[in-house]
Amino acid sequence: MSSVLSDAHLTEGMRSVFVELLVHGPLSRAEAARRLDLSPSAVTKLTKPLLQNGYLLHQPSGDRSMMGRPSQPLAVDPARAALLGVKLTEDELFAVRTDLRAEIQHELRRPLLSHAVDDVVTRIGEAVRDLTGSGQPPAALGISLAGTASGGDPVVPTSPFLGWRDVPLGDLVAAATGLPVVVENDVRALTAAQQWFGAGVGRHSFALVTVGAGLGCGLVIGGRLVSAAGRGTGLVGHLSIHDNGPLCELGHRGCARAYASSAAVRRAVASTLDRSDLTFEACLALAAEGQPAARRIFEDAGHALGQVVATVANITGVQLVILSGEAVAMYDVCAEAFDAALTAHTHWTSTPVDVVVKPFTFSEWARGAAVIALQHRILGR
Amino acid sequence: MSSVLSDAHLTEGMRSVFVELLVHGPLSRAEAARRLDLSPSAVTKLTKPLLQNGYLLHQPSGDRSMMGRPSQPLAVDPARAALLGVKLTEDELFAVRTDLRAEIQHELRRPLLSHAVDDVVTRIGEAVRDLTGSGQPPAALGISLAGTASGGDPVVPTSPFLGWRDVPLGDLVAAATGLPVVVENDVRALTAAQQWFGAGVGRHSFALVTVGAGLGCGLVIGGRLVSAAGRGTGLVGHLSIHDNGPLCELGHRGCARAYASSAAVRRAVASTLDRSDLTFEACLALAAEGQPAARRIFEDAGHALGQVVATVANITGVQLVILSGEAVAMYDVCAEAFDAALTAHTHWTSTPVDVVVKPFTFSEWARGAAVIALQHRILGR
Repeated sequence: MSSVLSDAHLTEGMRSVFVELLVHGPLSRAEAARRLDLSPSAVTKLTKPLLQNGYLLHQPSGDRSMMGRPSQPLAVDPARAALLGVKLTEDELFAVRTDLRAEIQHELRRPLLSHAVDDVVTRIGEAVRDLTGSGQPPAALGISLAGTASGGDPVVPTSPFLGWRDVPLGDLVAAATGLPVVVENDVRALTAAQQWFGAGVGRHSFALVTVGAGLGCGLVIGGRLVSAAGRGTGLVGHLSIHDNGPLCELGHRGCARAYASSAAVRRAVASTLDRSDLTFEACLALAAEGQPAARRIFEDAGHALGQVVATVANITGVQLVILSGEAVAMYDVCAEAFDAALTAHTHWTSTPVDVVVKPFTFSEWARGAAVIALQHRILGR
Repeated sequence: MSSVLSDAHLTEGMRSVFVELLVHGPLSRAEAARRLDLSPSAVTKLTKPLLQNGYLLHQPSGDRSMMGRPSQPLAVDPARAALLGVKLTEDELFAVRTDLRAEIQHELRRPLLSHAVDDVVTRIGEAVRDLTGSGQPPAALGISLAGTASGGDPVVPTSPFLGWRDVPLGDLVAAATGLPVVVENDVRALTAAQQWFGAGVGRHSFALVTVGAGLGCGLVIGGRLVSAAGRGTGLVGHLSIHDNGPLCELGHRGCARAYASSAAVRRAVASTLDRSDLTFEACLALAAEGQPAARRIFEDAGHALGQVVATVANITGVQLVILSGEAVAMYDVCAEAFDAALTAHTHWTSTPVDVVVKPFTFSEWARGAAVIALQHRILGR
């Protein structure tokens, strides 16, 4: 696959310098050299072609408030290339156009009219056209969705919400748009965005746990996004919490999903209060107002989430867990139960794990898809 | 740190070729080149100094039954260097001397007279002398023990069985023996041995789950042994299995350790049958003979182990789990319960995980310590 930087001949060394500047820049030559364990003259040599073709630029040193006078820090020119990201849900499509540093420039949201593959490909094609307009053609398109997709494979093996099996989505969209396309599991894509441009920057290892229609978990271990084609990773939804708890739709008694998914919480509140009209947001409002049953149901959800986060940290050793997802707003009403479960289930020899709560937006998930496209184009994987 | 191959100037490329031949050899130049994505002439150049100083040799092609005529396959000379490995338990020391391919040449077993650090260092020193004799001095010594030790740090932060906190074991033993010393968590060390010379060879990712005095888990993800200084990884012992189950010694109700550790199984059988004299082995024999209570207690242990293995695989995405440890013989009487729990708790979108059961020996754990020393000496980490 040719690279996003395809007009330059990209060596492994050039890639490393580019990624370092993209994620941590602007950096002085000396600092980039120190971080990459290279000599400053090697950095000069590696960055020369990237400066020539405009992917890097010299940042005017006056921009930075630093002691001393840094000699022309190097930075990526974010405007040098654009990326597109699309996140598919059960009934909608969210798409963004970003710059090279994954800053969102435009976004749009469209209903999916059906789950028929051709229809979805058509909708993606329309979104691509609308986001491209008469501007610079994007370098690549990332598509993220729930299921067992894994970057590099254009085929989606299973996507439960869309009812898909073995759909060659990547090839179909590539044919329809003429763009290089990367398809990835949505939680892994969001994890990639956190790794390069979010709370995971500078962390060797971390996990992202999401709560929404289901529970998800993405992992970065040893600086790499963990992927397991065919098996999936971070499958925490059916972790057993209480063996006398409520059922999930697969018949597991008391699994994490049966406590903490937005649908499970909504069903539990609606049924306890005999109010089938309640939305998840209305349930959340009731809990926030102190309605005791609603409160307890959210506390049970918080307990399950805390146990999930502790289990992930115990097994993988991550010291940071980012919490997000469509239903992450529940954290506000169940933080105490979450913290108590996290503490109770953290292994007694471990230091406490850091938890960062990221408010949810669908644009953020679409941005994750753009970052996956960027990583594949730059790293050539 | 100078390398086990310290008379050669070891570049990154030479290291890669050496490890490839160590783990997968003998290999023809062409095959080594293909595996490492190098040209055959690059392999020739990289292996030349290693051949000159005797770390590599040309294997007579007559040794191999292959179609065609391989042109002098390359192999590591296992006799070129020796390594020592020591595994500490609560009351004993196990030590081995191995060749470069971690084949055990000599082994010994000694009681620990006390947990006093000086005493233990003295015992290790004696074992090193006895295993070295008048032979070739070993290139390095690895020490493995339960606790939060992590390779590269000579200090043992905590070792529960020995009652140690912040013991600079590596430096003390290095001073006593004059050898380079690497200290590592025992489960991680055993995992390293499986990675380079066991069931994990050729696997990108796998887990090792051990059952004995406690439960342990080592992870290789993306070709690397996962380590998390200060936190530990693979902490599966207190995973919650049943919330109305027996207590562990930390007061957790129904955690995996309360069901499956050798002490928990022994206590449960002894107390149910009112026979405090029963050893773990006697309990196992009763279960094997079909004594119903003993059988059920081992089945409960198997269920807990199956749930642990499924949870590790769900979260990390590994497709292979190696099962070992002092009490792994229990698998024979609880395989059915283990398999049922593994299937029930494997995520519904995942392919089944492969499980390989490795019979337990303490020498194997001491060998793990030798492999950790080897990895640190070669990889320079």
